[in-house]
Amino acid sequence: MEILVQKFGGTSVGSIERIENAAKRVVKAVNAGKKVVVVSSAMAGETDNLIELAKKISEFPNEREMDMLLATGEQKAVALLSMAIRKLGYPAVSLCGWQIPIVTDSIHTKARIKRIGIQRLKNYLKEGYIPVVAGFQGVTEDWEITTLGRGGSDTTAVALAAALSANCEIYTDVPGVFTADPRIVPSAKKIPFISYEEMLELSSLGAKVMQIRSVEFAAKYRVRIHVRSSFKEEEGTWILPEDEIMEKVVVRGITVDTKESRITVVRVPDRPGIAARLFKALGEAHIVVDMIVQNVSHEGFTDMSFTVSKGDAPRAEEIVRRVSTEIGAKEVVRDDKVAKVSIVGLGMRSSYGTAAKMFEVLSKNGINIMAISTSEIKISCLIDEKYAELAVRALHEAFVENGEELKIGEEG
Amino acid sequence: MEILVQKFGGTSVGSIERIENAAKRVVKAVNAGKKVVVVSSAMAGETDNLIELAKKISEFPNEREMDMLLATGEQKAVALLSMAIRKLGYPAVSLCGWQIPIVTDSIHTKARIKRIGIQRLKNYLKEGYIPVVAGFQGVTEDWEITTLGRGGSDTTAVALAAALSANCEIYTDVPGVFTADPRIVPSAKKIPFISYEEMLELSSLGAKVMQIRSVEFAAKYRVRIHVRSSFKEEEGTWILPEDEIMEKVVVRGITVDTKESRITVVRVPDRPGIAARLFKALGEAHIVVDMIVQNVSHEGFTDMSFTVSKGDAPRAEEIVRRVSTEIGAKEVVRDDKVAKVSIVGLGMRSSYGTAAKMFEVLSKNGINIMAISTSEIKISCLIDEKYAELAVRALHEAFVENGEELKIGEEG
Repeated sequence: MEILVQKFGGTSVGSIERIENAAKRVVKAVNAGKKVVVVSSAMAGETDNLIELAKKISEFPNEREMDMLLATGEQKAVALLSMAIRKLGYPAVSLCGWQIPIVTDSIHTKARIKRIGIQRLKNYLKEGYIPVVAGFQGVTEDWEITTLGRGGSDTTAVALAAALSANCEIYTDVPGVFTADPRIVPSAKKIPFISYEEMLELSSLGAKVMQIRSVEFAAKYRVRIHVRSSFKEEEGTWILPEDEIMEKVVVRGITVDTKESRITVVRVPDRPGIAARLFKALGEAHIVVDMIVQNVSHEGFTDMSFTVSKGDAPRAEEIVRRVSTEIGAKEVVRDDKVAKVSIVGLGMRSSYGTAAKMFEVLSKNGINIMAISTSEIKISCLIDEKYAELAVRALHEAFVENGEELKIGEEG
Repeated sequence: MEILVQKFGGTSVGSIERIENAAKRVVKAVNAGKKVVVVSSAMAGETDNLIELAKKISEFPNEREMDMLLATGEQKAVALLSMAIRKLGYPAVSLCGWQIPIVTDSIHTKARIKRIGIQRLKNYLKEGYIPVVAGFQGVTEDWEITTLGRGGSDTTAVALAAALSANCEIYTDVPGVFTADPRIVPSAKKIPFISYEEMLELSSLGAKVMQIRSVEFAAKYRVRIHVRSSFKEEEGTWILPEDEIMEKVVVRGITVDTKESRITVVRVPDRPGIAARLFKALGEAHIVVDMIVQNVSHEGFTDMSFTVSKGDAPRAEEIVRRVSTEIGAKEVVRDDKVAKVSIVGLGMRSSYGTAAKMFEVLSKNGINIMAISTSEIKISCLIDEKYAELAVRALHEAFVENGEELKIGEEG
């Protein structure tokens, strides 16, 4: 029998009414003959409230304790969702990560799944139960609770779908993945099909629909994902293997990310090993560095800029200040008011002049570029945060609305 | 080295400030040279909020799911308390029931502890950590989360103290156990020492200081308990083995319990086996029946009354209605407006006329007695709820304030 993993995001279980609505979605799939495994996030706002409580006690709460704290959010949601499904007359059982178990490494607050025990889930399915699994959380081999990072419930869902050879429905508060954020670009359109690779770039670039790691997981195990609204019946966006996608466009979507901060180390002595020392210290603190720019050296000195997530920025700044004293840099400047705008599309691989066109669009709108990074299928520019929305609208107009002439049927 | 279990009730961790205050208490004991194991309840109000959420979904939420839901309250509290202790520079680790593990039977919402694995705790203590254990929760052999019933955190604390051969401090929002509820009787006095048996009667009769099962546990393993305020430094009440208590009084305290409902089955055919059938059905539903009164039979019919906790009353009424139709009773009446007032004291064993005096005090105040139950060291009367406070005040005056002449040095 076909197994389906249905994942409900925070807004889809954000109130008792919404939990009841999610329960109806589950029952509908069951009545359509599917064996359903449900995954739920914490109720909208819950995780933020918990973080706020912790911050009242300590600016840098212990991460092991943070995981203990945050894991309660999903546990609460699955218990309530399970009750709501039972209320409709269907036997549901809620399960925490450790009960499955979803075994992870022990990097607290950012753990990675190592393996999933599926026997307990399979037993429940065989006995006719609907397992309702707490997303976002796992357990180490030493029985310590871990969490998978912000948005980790998507990863839980996709990982379970992979383990159970199931399709995965991601219920969220938007009807699918859009060519740009519709709150910024009113003319943005829903994308019916998108490849893992494109979705990966869109996710990592700030499209809030799916967590990056969940898309990586899906790509690795070819899990077919259907992102859709929990409030509407219409089809959403299918995230699929590239070979299942017929229409390839140069630019699939435009994203903007204001969740990064830029840290600049001013007047670093330009000697071998300096950069290594800096980024090794950040790596040891499990801080992920995104864009890196090093200026041309002047008189044996250079400036070095990089971006990290705003959440990591205070800690990163602290580390960099320490290292910069050791390496004799002049000063460290942190800028939280930056934005990264990006264009993403499989078709870029076989299309020319896309980067030049992007820079031209930004320049025409008087927007200065602080840093550039590119991959095979995306181009990102770091700009002043105040131009973020303007940049997205201009790029959407140039590449999506008036980008027809660049559409290609086959890669070259 | 001496191990001390410190348990903080809901009000003692009811806000961030109070959690920080509790953390200071812990650190103080550590600095006094003790190895401390902390147990915490959920933050005040949390459990009620969770129950309210569940009730919005279903009047009778599934009990397994209820346990999943409620267990989050304590988990949240211990994570925060642990962060607060770490903030003071001491290494704390929060632990859920399943992580210890505290293994229980599988009677959800009212589970009983079967065994406690103390190796993990001992390892933490040996390594200098302060374990902060979630009260109220356990885990079955099948890895299902259970809870120990309202006030179950006391049981967790006492059970851990027993397992670790430790003394147990219970921090609460009152300075100790009083001769009566000071909100009702302003002249009530703090009791410095009380026996397990007396405390057991006081607990089961509605004194909210300690959960009954925890006192049973303490009695069984002779755990010395010190109930005290988390907001004041003064000594509280020591709950001790009877042989360590010097002064025995006839009446140690007066309690009132308005948490029971009376259910009356009217005009039951007076045949053998009828009562058995009724109470068997309630027993099967895990409903605890307290007082039972059967009237004298008239023309082959009798009335039967009993009390159950208000929480169980709707379900009990439902069951009784079903059974009463089968056995041909006339009707079933439920009365939620009753109160049970009781006097408790070891000295009653060797003192005469106490019951008569109690009935006389109530009668003088125009209070009708609906039912009576007694044990070796207590007498309880069920009365109309509206007379509850009047009854307590009158009994306190008669037995505690003017009870000196009945005080005895030794049992007869």
